[in-house]
Amino acid sequence: MSDDTGEGEATGTVHLVGSGPGDPELLTVKAKRLLETADVVLHDKLPGPEIIGMIPEAKREDVGKRAGGEWTPQEYTNRRLVELAREGKDVVRLKGGDPTVFGRGGEELVHLARHGVPVEIVPGITSAVAGPAAAGIPVTHRDHASSVSFVTGHEDPTKAESAVDWAALAATGGTIVVLMGVGKLPDYTAALREAGMDPETPVALIERATWPGQQVATGTLDSIVSARDAAGIEPPAITVIGDVAATRADVLEFLVGADREPENEAVDDGGDGDA
Amino acid sequence: MSDDTGEGEATGTVHLVGSGPGDPELLTVKAKRLLETADVVLHDKLPGPEIIGMIPEAKREDVGKRAGGEWTPQEYTNRRLVELAREGKDVVRLKGGDPTVFGRGGEELVHLARHGVPVEIVPGITSAVAGPAAAGIPVTHRDHASSVSFVTGHEDPTKAESAVDWAALAATGGTIVVLMGVGKLPDYTAALREAGMDPETPVALIERATWPGQQVATGTLDSIVSARDAAGIEPPAITVIGDVAATRADVLEFLVGADREPENEAVDDGGDGDA
Repeated sequence: MSDDTGEGEATGTVHLVGSGPGDPELLTVKAKRLLETADVVLHDKLPGPEIIGMIPEAKREDVGKRAGGEWTPQEYTNRRLVELAREGKDVVRLKGGDPTVFGRGGEELVHLARHGVPVEIVPGITSAVAGPAAAGIPVTHRDHASSVSFVTGHEDPTKAESAVDWAALAATGGTIVVLMGVGKLPDYTAALREAGMDPETPVALIERATWPGQQVATGTLDSIVSARDAAGIEPPAITVIGDVAATRADVLEFLVGADREPENEAVDDGGDGDA
Repeated sequence: MSDDTGEGEATGTVHLVGSGPGDPELLTVKAKRLLETADVVLHDKLPGPEIIGMIPEAKREDVGKRAGGEWTPQEYTNRRLVELAREGKDVVRLKGGDPTVFGRGGEELVHLARHGVPVEIVPGITSAVAGPAAAGIPVTHRDHASSVSFVTGHEDPTKAESAVDWAALAATGGTIVVLMGVGKLPDYTAALREAGMDPETPVALIERATWPGQQVATGTLDSIVSARDAAGIEPPAITVIGDVAATRADVLEFLVGADREPENEAVDDGGDGDA
């Protein structure tokens, strides 16, 4: 593991830092400190406009979508992190949510260690939990969900080689949270119904959770696609599938923070659920 | 929803606040602020000694284990939260990890809303993600795990009515993270093997993640019980099951923060995994 490590040089540290869902107050104390003290911050757009805006422009390197809409290749980001550390820089690699819940933090971790760069994981609040919470939905509940699974909606469930086994997820009986799942919503709700999941299962979509302009649409496995379209829900958004999604209706009136949402929430309540 | 609400009185707010895994720097900025400004903080032992120690004693109400080892009944905590809010108090209900990932935050949320008490969810970093991360393990990885499921190990998997479907979890092919799963480790590792999961699947146990005295034991589905016993792993601990658990071995040498662990880590490396 020690070939090509640059040992002997004063190698800086790379901190893989989660930004949380977007509300700057949901940064950890440690993330906030590191953003202030780091020499360089590599980021994309996922941490959201408020948090990106807190970082002095001179420190920022955007490794997200480039002009023209293409993503910066992961290989470039990996190489740049090693390069900056070898210059002795204290580097923050800022990721939306948590750095190890999707988003390739694991790949960056392994790449850095393999190149002898000291690396620290600084967890952040994953949107998979904070998104539902911002809409009044607990991802587990003693009576309704004894497990919760996170998956990414970027996979195409109509492809035979899809890595996500939707039937197995349905069989767990627990809550399913889909990250980045706006576009493929028709595909995986169909896959879950085909796997035998009750079409009346409550579903909620939360767009830009904890960001200014958060939006929520609710419905059932059967009706959520039309609720999405009626509300004009766009990425980035979180999908929550399971009886817990019906909790929102029970608590919304007294939920502090819910007043930031626009008034005309789209509800397509094909079935009321029983939670 | 408005009967018995105490409306008209100056009802205080209850903040259901996640403490994160235990490191005070992994509190969110908002949690830290609320701990400073709240009138009362209801807590148990799960936030860990460092965070509990930050709260002025005069503000604290312990609703965890009582003298004699019994737990405070949930009904007492529910009633006390409503009572304090109706006295106009600004109340923090502090939970270990995240308030909506197990731990009954969802029940408290519904109870408070039903009684007309303004309630806010302040997410915290769940130990289900931060525990593995502290040991150098990302819970997802593009090559190894396209989903991650959290379950609680408190359920008895030998009971027919167990709510956790271990066979379905095994079938997802994703990472499985078990919270509170030290005692039942032999039961659910057996259940997963019976469900056809490869006995050489890497497994890691992380005790007191991010607390002083964090301890890690690693092995396989077959060997982790003896690794647990050799290391003397005790609750609270997190179990990570899946190929991602082998990442630790690849990154440990350069993992910042890993030096807080005792030297004599128990490794029972019955199979090396391929991650």
